[in-house]
Amino acid sequence: MDFEFDATTEDYRKRLLAFMDEHVYPAEAGYHSDGWEPPAVLESLKVAAKAAGLWNLFLPGEHGAGLTNLQYAPLAEITGRSPAIAPAALNCAAPDTGNMEVLAEFGTPQQREQWLRPLLDGTIRSAFAMTEPQVASSDATNIGTRIERDGDEYVINGHKFYITGAMNPNCRIFIVMGKTDPDAERHVQQSQILVPRDTPGLTVKRGMTVFGYTDGDHGGHAELIFENVRVPVSNLIGVEGGGFAISQARLGPGRIHHCMRLIGMAERGLELMCRRSLARAPFGKPLAEQGVVQDWIAESRVRIEQARLLVLKAAWLMDTVGNKGAHTEIQAIKIVVPSTVEWILDKAIQAHGAAGTSQDTPLAALWAAARTLRLADGPDEVHKRSLARRELNRYRSRP
Amino acid sequence: MDFEFDATTEDYRKRLLAFMDEHVYPAEAGYHSDGWEPPAVLESLKVAAKAAGLWNLFLPGEHGAGLTNLQYAPLAEITGRSPAIAPAALNCAAPDTGNMEVLAEFGTPQQREQWLRPLLDGTIRSAFAMTEPQVASSDATNIGTRIERDGDEYVINGHKFYITGAMNPNCRIFIVMGKTDPDAERHVQQSQILVPRDTPGLTVKRGMTVFGYTDGDHGGHAELIFENVRVPVSNLIGVEGGGFAISQARLGPGRIHHCMRLIGMAERGLELMCRRSLARAPFGKPLAEQGVVQDWIAESRVRIEQARLLVLKAAWLMDTVGNKGAHTEIQAIKIVVPSTVEWILDKAIQAHGAAGTSQDTPLAALWAAARTLRLADGPDEVHKRSLARRELNRYRSRP
Amino acid sequence: MDFEFDATTEDYRKRLLAFMDEHVYPAEAGYHSDGWEPPAVLESLKVAAKAAGLWNLFLPGEHGAGLTNLQYAPLAEITGRSPAIAPAALNCAAPDTGNMEVLAEFGTPQQREQWLRPLLDGTIRSAFAMTEPQVASSDATNIGTRIERDGDEYVINGHKFYITGAMNPNCRIFIVMGKTDPDAERHVQQSQILVPRDTPGLTVKRGMTVFGYTDGDHGGHAELIFENVRVPVSNLIGVEGGGFAISQARLGPGRIHHCMRLIGMAERGLELMCRRSLARAPFGKPLAEQGVVQDWIAESRVRIEQARLLVLKAAWLMDTVGNKGAHTEIQAIKIVVPSTVEWILDKAIQAHGAAGTSQDTPLAALWAAARTLRLADGPDEVHKRSLARRELNRYRSRP
Amino acid sequence: MDFEFDATTEDYRKRLLAFMDEHVYPAEAGYHSDGWEPPAVLESLKVAAKAAGLWNLFLPGEHGAGLTNLQYAPLAEITGRSPAIAPAALNCAAPDTGNMEVLAEFGTPQQREQWLRPLLDGTIRSAFAMTEPQVASSDATNIGTRIERDGDEYVINGHKFYITGAMNPNCRIFIVMGKTDPDAERHVQQSQILVPRDTPGLTVKRGMTVFGYTDGDHGGHAELIFENVRVPVSNLIGVEGGGFAISQARLGPGRIHHCMRLIGMAERGLELMCRRSLARAPFGKPLAEQGVVQDWIAESRVRIEQARLLVLKAAWLMDTVGNKGAHTEIQAIKIVVPSTVEWILDKAIQAHGAAGTSQDTPLAALWAAARTLRLADGPDEVHKRSLARRELNRYRSRP
Repeated sequence: MDFEFDATTEDYRKRLLAFMDEHVYPAEAGYHSDGWEPPAVLESLKVAAKAAGLWNLFLPGEHGAGLTNLQYAPLAEITGRSPAIAPAALNCAAPDTGNMEVLAEFGTPQQREQWLRPLLDGTIRSAFAMTEPQVASSDATNIGTRIERDGDEYVINGHKFYITGAMNPNCRIFIVMGKTDPDAERHVQQSQILVPRDTPGLTVKRGMTVFGYTDGDHGGHAELIFENVRVPVSNLIGVEGGGFAISQARLGPGRIHHCMRLIGMAERGLELMCRRSLARAPFGKPLAEQGVVQDWIAESRVRIEQARLLVLKAAWLMDTVGNKGAHTEIQAIKIVVPSTVEWILDKAIQAHGAAGTSQDTPLAALWAAARTLRLADGPDEVHKRSLARRELNRYRSRP
Repeated sequence: MDFEFDATTEDYRKRLLAFMDEHVYPAEAGYHSDGWEPPAVLESLKVAAKAAGLWNLFLPGEHGAGLTNLQYAPLAEITGRSPAIAPAALNCAAPDTGNMEVLAEFGTPQQREQWLRPLLDGTIRSAFAMTEPQVASSDATNIGTRIERDGDEYVINGHKFYITGAMNPNCRIFIVMGKTDPDAERHVQQSQILVPRDTPGLTVKRGMTVFGYTDGDHGGHAELIFENVRVPVSNLIGVEGGGFAISQARLGPGRIHHCMRLIGMAERGLELMCRRSLARAPFGKPLAEQGVVQDWIAESRVRIEQARLLVLKAAWLMDTVGNKGAHTEIQAIKIVVPSTVEWILDKAIQAHGAAGTSQDTPLAALWAAARTLRLADGPDEVHKRSLARRELNRYRSRP
Repeated sequence: MDFEFDATTEDYRKRLLAFMDEHVYPAEAGYHSDGWEPPAVLESLKVAAKAAGLWNLFLPGEHGAGLTNLQYAPLAEITGRSPAIAPAALNCAAPDTGNMEVLAEFGTPQQREQWLRPLLDGTIRSAFAMTEPQVASSDATNIGTRIERDGDEYVINGHKFYITGAMNPNCRIFIVMGKTDPDAERHVQQSQILVPRDTPGLTVKRGMTVFGYTDGDHGGHAELIFENVRVPVSNLIGVEGGGFAISQARLGPGRIHHCMRLIGMAERGLELMCRRSLARAPFGKPLAEQGVVQDWIAESRVRIEQARLLVLKAAWLMDTVGNKGAHTEIQAIKIVVPSTVEWILDKAIQAHGAAGTSQDTPLAALWAAARTLRLADGPDEVHKRSLARRELNRYRSRP
Repeated sequence: MDFEFDATTEDYRKRLLAFMDEHVYPAEAGYHSDGWEPPAVLESLKVAAKAAGLWNLFLPGEHGAGLTNLQYAPLAEITGRSPAIAPAALNCAAPDTGNMEVLAEFGTPQQREQWLRPLLDGTIRSAFAMTEPQVASSDATNIGTRIERDGDEYVINGHKFYITGAMNPNCRIFIVMGKTDPDAERHVQQSQILVPRDTPGLTVKRGMTVFGYTDGDHGGHAELIFENVRVPVSNLIGVEGGGFAISQARLGPGRIHHCMRLIGMAERGLELMCRRSLARAPFGKPLAEQGVVQDWIAESRVRIEQARLLVLKAAWLMDTVGNKGAHTEIQAIKIVVPSTVEWILDKAIQAHGAAGTSQDTPLAALWAAARTLRLADGPDEVHKRSLARRELNRYRSRP
């Protein structure tokens, strides 16, 4: 047992921290989108990140930086300190990361050439269209969208919403989850298929806000209508019925990334809370000397340390025993990290007074992001129930 | 001791509930402001409210409906079920209510004629400019804005922010808090003065968002700059040095109103949580039969009942022993109600999944309003400290 | 709506507060039972209470003081400040109160003569034997104990535990709940029957501790074995099959009493927390000036105020619309009061350091009592589920 | 970074788990002390532990098993599953462990011969007398006990309480903390000195209970009076003025041990909660299928995993950078572990109903132990304040 980062990780951390100071934080002041697409400055940040060798860090294997989950996790944490900018600047932003992983692992050479290459180059964006308005997002087997074969084409009909990134005009390709065979066994009914944005019959109906935010930095969340959308059969990813398995494969790394970025958000919130507490002295006494504020700061530090270790252990398990062996821990971090970080950001907001709820600090937007992650991939409650069942199973057969 | 509403209250409740069904809820779908002013439909709602005899209910005495705090409180709760519409429709929205109370109690006949009358008629709106960016809003004695006499005029210089309603172009008059004598005893340094919106030197600099929302339904929150703003001495409210006392006087009723509207918001959230739980059945079982959701519902009901009784008792105390005698209870409701309601709304959001965070339900906006009230009039922590000191004082002199 | 106590209540409160000062608090220091029966000093306190006209206050109607629930509730609160002594001194201690209510309402003249009279006189104690080790105490319909008619006798067989007061040798009579007809409809299978302590076949097996305490002040909690215990048919209370209904009837007042005593316990805890905070100054600063301690004190005050109002409203509802009409509120106070009071006592203990966990303050024993009440009459979770279902029912039939 | 135990640890874990199954759990049923000394069966368990090579595992260096903190921590966790028996059986129980560490590191050859040897052999017990009734236990610099030199002797006068283990007649030696020079600089006023139990002038006044428990398994907690107690100067440990430094040295390992045992207690509680939930089905549905119980189980698992990792990291830091470098983490585990474990045990109790509060499960006693550790070595709040200050210091000098 050893709690030290390896040399590769430390080297990347050092360079990434410098990049944050030099490029990312200075860009924050001007980085705000009222609409549905990222600010123009993002393009120059991407150029700088490529030049600094900080590009596609998330992706293991030949197509990316080749880091393990345990090596990438501390880097994802650092990007989470400025989550609207840094992940996109480094081409490490969701949902593109998951889509690139899927194409790298399951895509045909043609699919990789056509879609993975521009995604890896950062010239286009993508979205993953799974969630539906009439179906609990936690229950993927219930999806209503149909993908029906008709000769050399698949015909797609369905209704999706909360599709992250889809309002961005530069989002050129959707990976769509739907049912190719509703009568098959429960976990092989679904397939995933590539649908270019400009395919006839696909309507990006509207953007959906998140607590008043458009989330325009990555294009926001869209409602999509698929009406007799036709794509060639070569657009299918993997095999018919493989959609559920592919979506499970992307879950593990995605949760590590999300959770480590959340840790970074919490660190940012804690830093802002400390700085504000030192700077403000209502009633003649710095907030930093108020017992209640000290309690928030101490609790925040303690909770961050615990949460980070659990995420790192989950990453280590994924590297050593695989997605399946890390199941409990991956579920555990999904349960504990968003709510923990939400709590810390709430206290940071409180320490800032009204300003903490406004556009004058990043805190309110960070909070909204953390809050939303208590729901993304299914509400925490569903994951708790599942984790509890596994815990109980340990005792079912033992007297 | 008796927990039944009197006949007057019951009569108003009945009529107001009918008004909500007939006018307010139907208006909700179309009631959304992307900008900084209320939707046009508000004007027709105001006509309907006047016709229904549901106008200026908040105001005791001859200028208003003449209700006690205890009689008005349950009506404020009902308007809180649709807080973006109902209070404004009934001319019972903050901060106009407090401003009207101040003008009715402390205004000169001329001030009442010029500003109270159009406010009572609902033809203009107003704002209360106290909070400053460099000063803790909980510490009114620290205010930096200067109000200096120069012949027949006062000259105002200062910087205000988070001034609710000030972005609304129909907000024609500001009551501004500033110091007329910084060298006087601590609580008589401040004065309040009327400043029309179009006075030279007054700049409405920008709107401030709240968790991404403009709060445009009542005009949003503005940052204001006062640079050598000149108004006639007759614009002073009350006497020089009376500003702090006037602001204390408005606090009591304001908190009752806010807290009762919050109770209404919580009831709305609980209703939506129940309806959603009955309607959705992920994994084949209605949410309403999930133990965790039942726990949220029961906790919500129990917390609402407790909080409501405490607000009603505070209102009763204000009516029977006055603002000062009700001090502890007024502080207690400020401490407990916003955080309680925030908790309930959070659970209602969780029961709705991603949709709960979007514009498709009122929940996210209600949540942001409740969250903000944990900071308005000073953060909860300041009020807890003050209440604790009073509690401790009971034992200081007793062995 | 009116939040003032009536004159009768105020008169009793005044006299009871004087009795506490004169008799109860001074007795606390010497009042400790290592074994299973109350200290001898209790008898003289009972004499004093009778003399002061503070006897059987709990009992409405001709047999007792004739107070309403709303009148008795504030008196129960006061006795709760010293719950090991005051309720027993005033002959208002559970489970005798419930047993006396049952005998007064459902007993035959002979039963009343034989058992109610000495209970009213305070010469004997009693217990209520319902809970069983193999059955969830929240599910009364599941009870395993059998009461079978055999000629002029009933024969009782069963196993009970956690029977409060039964270890006290002065506990002369048990009211036993069991099934007379296991095949009848679910709520008419049970009956209640009087079993004198010395009946052959009844074994008081052992005392059961509560967090290390014997709870010896009222005799502790016993495990009982009934083996062919025979009593005359005249010992049946009410009719065969009436047991469930009788047990429901005693629940309402019992919960009011328990909850109001808990409020008194919380007030005691808060007082001790305040006094300790003023008296101790680790690191040179009184605890009373520590922000975190102030936060505890303020939260305690606010929670107490809310909880008390809810219990008083439940009492008022019982008086005005009856046990059934007050169902939701009676359940609500069972849910909220024990956990609230437990929280307050935990903070009071923390403010006392190690001493707070020892016999040197009443806090640890008060805490154990509050903790246990989260389980008595069924765990909170069962009551929450039931309350949630009623809440949900409001929306089942309404679109 | 690597989360796997090394081979030595795994070997010890395997043998210790077998010892628990073979010797410890079977002894639990009969292991209960009503008085102030451990049950007689303990002696045979000690023989078995020695035979199994599971003796003095806590002690690094030549005198003990020579394990690092990181190697011993997982073993301490296992002993925590039966904390009244296993630590004492393995001669790894507090406060002897800390006393042995102190004697091994700071004792003279004669002190080691006279006291360390029988302690290592398990033939006597010891206590550490620091806490005083009039001084916050978190503020060691405030201690009132005097240790004054008089020729070849030291004369000790003072008042101690809550001295763990001191009621055990087999506790033969006290390490007493007192002031040799009250006028010296703050951290060199104190010294530690050995005082045999039978020294004239030392009175073991009474035992102090903890939530009704005597904690008799290790001898309970005593109040001690020192009146002109004389010991030879050779009884001083280290140098005059070295007492504070010595007490700091023992803190680090002590917290690791306590916290890892607490993790084991939590695992035990979780196991009992799971087993009970599978076994009981009130209202016809196993508790294990109740959503609220599943929520408890999942939360418990997630909290345990996080807490364990933080304690292990603290142990690793102690091994790699020393007590001082691990300061933040040692404080962090003191803050988070007892309250986390208390929460889990509370839920386990709740799942057991009334039985959970009684002597029929170990849960209530485990709970009392965890609760007390929120106070031992100073209340959590003191540690939070200190940790917060260190966190704030990171930003004091950085703009």
